[in-house]
Formats: sequence, C-alpha cells, structure tokens
Amino acid sequence: MGRINMKAHLDCVPCFQRQALRAVRMVTDDSGKQESILREVMAALLDMDWRSSPPDLAHAVYRIIRQSSGEADPYSELKKQYNDLAMEIYSGMKEKVNASPDPLMTAVKLAVAGNVVDFGVHSKFDLKGTIVDIMNKDFRINGFESFKSQLEISEYIVYLGDNTGEIVFDKMLLEYILENFNINRVTFAVKGAPIINDATHEDAVYVGLDKLPGIDFINIDIGEPGTGYDRSSPEFRAVLEGADMVIAKGQGNFESLSEYEWIYFLLMVKCPIVAEHLNVDVGDYVLKGGLEGGKTG
Amino acid sequence: MGRINMKAHLDCVPCFQRQALRAVRMVTDDSGKQESILREVMAALLDMDWRSSPPDLAHAVYRIIRQSSGEADPYSELKKQYNDLAMEIYSGMKEKVNASPDPLMTAVKLAVAGNVVDFGVHSKFDLKGTIVDIMNKDFRINGFESFKSQLEISEYIVYLGDNTGEIVFDKMLLEYILENFNINRVTFAVKGAPIINDATHEDAVYVGLDKLPGIDFINIDIGEPGTGYDRSSPEFRAVLEGADMVIAKGQGNFESLSEYEWIYFLLMVKCPIVAEHLNVDVGDYVLKGGLEGGKTG
Repeated sequence: MGRINMKAHLDCVPCFQRQALRAVRMVTDDSGKQESILREVMAALLDMDWRSSPPDLAHAVYRIIRQSSGEADPYSELKKQYNDLAMEIYSGMKEKVNASPDPLMTAVKLAVAGNVVDFGVHSKFDLKGTIVDIMNKDFRINGFESFKSQLEISEYIVYLGDNTGEIVFDKMLLEYILENFNINRVTFAVKGAPIINDATHEDAVYVGLDKLPGIDFINIDIGEPGTGYDRSSPEFRAVLEGADMVIAKGQGNFESLSEYEWIYFLLMVKCPIVAEHLNVDVGDYVLKGGLEGGKTG
Repeated sequence: MGRINMKAHLDCVPCFQRQALRAVRMVTDDSGKQESILREVMAALLDMDWRSSPPDLAHAVYRIIRQSSGEADPYSELKKQYNDLAMEIYSGMKEKVNASPDPLMTAVKLAVAGNVVDFGVHSKFDLKGTIVDIMNKDFRINGFESFKSQLEISEYIVYLGDNTGEIVFDKMLLEYILENFNINRVTFAVKGAPIINDATHEDAVYVGLDKLPGIDFINIDIGEPGTGYDRSSPEFRAVLEGADMVIAKGQGNFESLSEYEWIYFLLMVKCPIVAEHLNVDVGDYVLKGGLEGGKTG
C-alpha cells in the first residue's frame, strides 16, 4: 500500500488564488475589498508549507474568505440551485438506472457525472451534458469489476461525499446498492460546515439522504476546530479501517486519501495536477481502487 | 481620445504567477528552486500597486526570474525555434499574399496570425493552424478600411513589434506596404533586452528585418534601466506622435497604449481580461483603431 498522499503542486498556489477571487466575487462587488482579500490569501499562502495536501491549502484560503468577507457560505444560493436541479432530474435518472442492462454501472456513472458540480474549479457546469457524456464513455481507470465484487462481500460502507447537487446522485447510487446488495449500514461523510459548494449535513437532509435505511453521518472538518474530523486524523482513519468498503467521491477526497489504494475513488478529473498524478487527462472519469483481495490486499 | 490605458485586473495577479512558474521551469528542474522563485514573485506582487498596467507587473515578475535564476533569457531556445519555423514558411506565405485577391488584407491577417506565438500565455501554439483559422475568419473588430486609408496618406510608420516568430510576418507585411504605398521611413520597436519571447534587435537582424529600405529601430524597455524607452515615457510618446501612422502588435502594446485610439492595434485576443476590455472573445482577431480623420481625430 502506498504511503504518500497527494501533496500540493506549485501550480496549486496560483490556482487557489483564482478560486479565492471567484469566491470573493460571490460575496462582494467592491473591487477594493476583493483586492484586499486576495492580498490576504497570498500572504497566508506565503506563510504556508506547500507540501501540505491541496485540501489543507484550500481550508486556509477559504477560511480567510469567510473571516474577511464576514460571509460563512459564499456559495449558499448556488448550492441550493444545484441541489434543486439534481432533484428535478432525479426521477428520470432513476428510470434510466432501472431500464439499463447494467443498472449498477449506470448508477455509478451518474454518481460520477454529479461530481462535475464543483465551484472550486469552474463557475458553470453542464450537469445534463456531463450525464450524456459519461454514458457514452468508459471509465479511463476502470475498477468496476472489483467495485462490484467488493459490494457483494460487504455489509458496512463508508461513503465520502463531495458536492451539493452531486449528493442527489450519491443517494441514487446508495439506494440501488441498498436494494440489491447485503449492505446493512452506511456511514456518509459530509463537511462539518460550509466550504465551497461541498455538501453538509443540511444538504443531506435537504435531498432526503437521511431517509435511507441504516444510514448515519460523520462530519469532515473544513480546517476549523469543532467542524469535524480531519481526514488525516487517527480517529477518521479508524472509521475508514472499520468499514468493509470505502467509496470516496471527488478530487478532494482523493488528494487527502490517495495512499489508501483499497478505497474506491470515484471522480471526474478536473485539474492537470490530479490528471498527471493519475496519468489520465482532464475531463476523464475515474473509478479507481480495489486491490486484489480487497482492502487488506 | 481616451485617457485611461489598461490597468491590471485582479485576475492578472495569479496569471503572472502561472507565467512565472512556466518560465522558471524552462530554467531549472529543481522544484525547490522553482518554489523559492515563485515565493519571491508572490512577495514582489504583494508589494506592488496592482493598478499598474499588466506589462509593468510582467516586468517585475520576469526581473525576479532573471535575477534569481541567473538566466537572462529563459526562452532563448524556443525563440530561435519559432523564428526558424516562421522563416521556413515565409516563402509560401509570401506567395499566398501575392496570389490573394486582397493582398494587403492577407498580409495583415498573416501578421496577426503570427501573434499567436506567445510564451506568456501558452507553452505550445499551432502557428500553421492559426494561419488557416484567420484566413477563414473576419476580424472581430475590423478597422481594415481605415487602416488602408491611413496607409495611403502616410509616409512615416512607427511599428511596435511583439514576439519572435511573429516578427517574420511583420517583415512580410512591411515589405508589402513598402512596395505598394508611399512609405519612406519605418521605425520598428523591439524590446531592449530579452523578456518572455518578445523580439529584440537581435531577432530583427536574424530574420532580416534590418534589410528593409528606410527602416530604423527603437528599443522598448523591459523594466530595467538602460534597456530602452518606457512606453509611457514622454520621449516614447513623442516618437508615436511624430509618426503618420502607428501599428502596434499584440496584447502588451495594447495594454500599455490603449488610450491612443488612433493607433492601429493588431492582435490575437489571448486572455479574458483583454477580451472583456475589447468586448470580444478569447481567440478573436482584432484590427482596432482609426479614428475618423486619423490620429488627430
């Protein structure tokens, strides 16, 4: 098992500044305020160790935006919009899964298509276009057979969610899994407070994920005390180790946990650094994971 | 006449850091060195007034790269490659101009296609593909008729060059102009020392631009004392005012001199900030300029 998780690349440093600008523009039209927050972000990045993981740098950047803008949740309105959009197309997607010759594959692909909703990377997405795209493509890294085999021998899943909107497709995948496999418990990880457009427990409740049988929730911290478990903490690692199977959505979870090669990482590749790390291209869809023999391999 | 030239946008700040990374990677593979130079660039940007023009910020950034890397000309090899590539296709392009129903338009379009060669923005270009593209497109801002009329009443042109490679197409355009209009003097502005892949006097000589009848050269500074005239200096402005017609290539000249609406700006639009300023899209080709009645209008 690899022991090195993904470190920030030098390219992440200007990229986080672009992200900061995008977020701060959601909060204020005052260009003087925008400039002063960007300067604060740069000064903070200069003080940091760039060998941290990209999510650790992100935590610091978004903390400054929250504190200096006074707005804890710059993307709140957009988050709701994407939850609503995903819920609108939920029934149609559910029919698509049921009508599919390989319903599990279709449900997994939809869950990965949902990963396109990410305000850290872009400010607009084409969720419906992404669904069409992924249905016509194979996973660039395709651990589907292992994923399916592991589901067949698992009873307890830890599922690390990523974004709002996307969480509706996570719910659909979990519904399919709960109906068709012998899973009796799911621990779903959400962020313990708002950061970018990541899903929180409030979003999980909003989309009805809390109604699934046997589901419980765990909070991942956003770099602030009291917001949950750091993904690198022993407590959180124990949660992962306690599951029969871990499914982790999105780049952030991959960047934080890539050393756990038995985790099933489901993501859309959105940046050149993650693409290089995985030896794939930006825009590729990935279902990575599944050592021979499962997580103990 | 407008009096405000283009100020740097907040988005320019992370963009210059991306550029710095690209340049420093040309110079060293040592990631520790790359990081320390990026940190120096960030610290310098934090100290600067961001209401400067983008080229002024660029000067500061590339000065740090030169000084800290000890390499005055990180792009020297690539500059030669693009000069050579452009010279290889020069004869074919010349035939294309002569065979064209509108040879001046074709020569102008080729000169703008040459503007694609810009290591500040990308690390790879498709020069030949750009030539095909521009031949099938109209200028998004099209001051061609005014440009042609002004040529007809001019004797002295000041021509502000931009990049290596591109300078071969500038030469071709000037050859056509010198053969078909009553121009008896051309002052061609090059950079006074290497910066990014901008053309210097050495490049002008390398591609034979110095052989044109009635041509002389003037150096534009790269933010270092003794390298030439600052584009905002009274001396340089006097040079512009003394010409019957000024042709300026590329974004840098536009960003520095956009207040002179009678200058003919020929450029490919390469960044969203310039695109927004001109109300066009990235990738568009622009021939802007020509107030009613020429430069005194």
